[in-house]
Amino acid sequence: MLKNELQEIIDLKTKPPGSLGFLENIALKIGLVQKTDKPKLEKPTIIVFAGDHGIAKEGVSNYPQEVTYQMVMNFLNGGAAINVFSRENNISLKVVDAGVNFNFKKNKNLINSKIGNGTKSFLCQKAMSTAQLNLCLKRGGEIIEKIFQGGCNIVGFGEMGIGNTSSATMLMSYLCNTPIEKCAGRGTGLNKAQLKRKIAILKKAQAFHGTINKPTSILKTFGGFEIAQMCGAMLAAYEKNMLILVDGFIASSAFLVAFKINPKIISTALFCHQSDEHGHKALLKFLKADPILKLQLRLGEGTGCALAYPVIKNAVAFLNDMASFKSAGVSNKN
Amino acid sequence: MLKNELQEIIDLKTKPPGSLGFLENIALKIGLVQKTDKPKLEKPTIIVFAGDHGIAKEGVSNYPQEVTYQMVMNFLNGGAAINVFSRENNISLKVVDAGVNFNFKKNKNLINSKIGNGTKSFLCQKAMSTAQLNLCLKRGGEIIEKIFQGGCNIVGFGEMGIGNTSSATMLMSYLCNTPIEKCAGRGTGLNKAQLKRKIAILKKAQAFHGTINKPTSILKTFGGFEIAQMCGAMLAAYEKNMLILVDGFIASSAFLVAFKINPKIISTALFCHQSDEHGHKALLKFLKADPILKLQLRLGEGTGCALAYPVIKNAVAFLNDMASFKSAGVSNKN
Repeated sequence: MLKNELQEIIDLKTKPPGSLGFLENIALKIGLVQKTDKPKLEKPTIIVFAGDHGIAKEGVSNYPQEVTYQMVMNFLNGGAAINVFSRENNISLKVVDAGVNFNFKKNKNLINSKIGNGTKSFLCQKAMSTAQLNLCLKRGGEIIEKIFQGGCNIVGFGEMGIGNTSSATMLMSYLCNTPIEKCAGRGTGLNKAQLKRKIAILKKAQAFHGTINKPTSILKTFGGFEIAQMCGAMLAAYEKNMLILVDGFIASSAFLVAFKINPKIISTALFCHQSDEHGHKALLKFLKADPILKLQLRLGEGTGCALAYPVIKNAVAFLNDMASFKSAGVSNKN
Repeated sequence: MLKNELQEIIDLKTKPPGSLGFLENIALKIGLVQKTDKPKLEKPTIIVFAGDHGIAKEGVSNYPQEVTYQMVMNFLNGGAAINVFSRENNISLKVVDAGVNFNFKKNKNLINSKIGNGTKSFLCQKAMSTAQLNLCLKRGGEIIEKIFQGGCNIVGFGEMGIGNTSSATMLMSYLCNTPIEKCAGRGTGLNKAQLKRKIAILKKAQAFHGTINKPTSILKTFGGFEIAQMCGAMLAAYEKNMLILVDGFIASSAFLVAFKINPKIISTALFCHQSDEHGHKALLKFLKADPILKLQLRLGEGTGCALAYPVIKNAVAFLNDMASFKSAGVSNKN
């Protein structure tokens, strides 16, 4: 299925050309990924990767580190926002312990992919070792392989990790060559003074680590086991020709690393939501990405993916099910 | 249920305060309308009002007038965008012949509420008589009464009518005291020269009719049987304490008249989508309305309502189903 053919099919649906706006772009993109004018979304799944961050102990967040494991328990018990939205929109939810600072009991709903009990603080050292980074990328890929084998062709990425807007800020600053002030935001709700402190801490880390060029080295340095596993999972999802749903600021920072490793990944990605987190708008602009929703969310967990999924589903449905001018006997333009 | 109590319940859900952004506003609004922290959306319904316009014959649209009846047939056969989106999102769809220039055969899916075979051209006369206007308002109310009796508490309003962006433009220009150039847009897809012509025609009509102050007189003059019935239906829905979903430019113009008649109606309204039609942004601003979606749609039919409904449903679900910090054992802010 070529782009022009698909566009013509979209244009001959019973509506003025272009009048379904952004849904037409989504339908076109999905048709091109699946190479058909009858695309199907199979077993939509959101994976929430959770991990702890050494940097959290430097005072970059309003919330204590134990909130990461407590929220994972909340995910497992079905009480978090992402549980509610996944249920409402018929999306399967998977929760991954990518490296939370807590030893969970065995739980059939929790994928154990723990690399360690949180990363090291990147203030004066690398967040993770090369071996840990490689393990993250591999494990992310394995999680995708399993979901793909189960028949899923559309996967969303969410995260939980106190301190992880700091990691994401560093990734963005290094990979987009943008000053930290333009990347750092209020995370879970810092006030002005707290944000100033966060920026000062992150600048100190930048001064310590200096120039780093290789995307994987940047990822290793500023880490996030959950961010690195997401990155590996996204790269694997692209290889499987799955549609990739990108959530907010942190998921986008993982995508940014994946994009630097393999720019082709952009062809299968849908950017679900422009977060209220300060740097996200600029990050999406850097990726030339148009977000589907702008609901002023700043929660993460994949909530933007879950909320955008119905729009995506409706876009696929119009391409499949709408009548054409000819089939409906409707007069086209004068 | 008071506003402060509801806000506190929202704030104690397991998320940083405000981090569900616009969904929190929606949940709050619906909780206040239904006076409960456990609101329910019952039998969501979209009503598409169709009508023809005398002004269509003056050359304000790209499409011939018969497209109105052809699209009604398309609605009845299930092939239009609003059919697809209503099905996808489990919304009941009702189609109303408010005054199409075509005599439909009896059809169980079509509500016959015909006032006439289209309005008169408002270029040099009033679009409808006072008796017709009153009948429109009454019929709109009766349609709502029936749906309400069936158990519906959330109703969306869509429309179809070749030429009806011209009616909506006049309503906006008169009721918001805004020059026609700032209200008129490209409708189904006019080019620059055609838009210029449309504006010239509408200015001529404005010069002919001069000053009119009463909202119902403005509605009678520039008409649209479908717009007037929508207006009556919206006013009735407010009286029944139903949630009102407002679609794009034309539905918003009907809402504008209803708002001028009874400003309290704003308390139960949700503005679903900011249309790409030129005047809609300013019209929403006039109403101090924040639209849920901005998907660059410019189709009408209630498509914005259908696409925003899942977001509204998710907002209600988080208020009902999310755990609180206390119930989930999650630490609150430092």
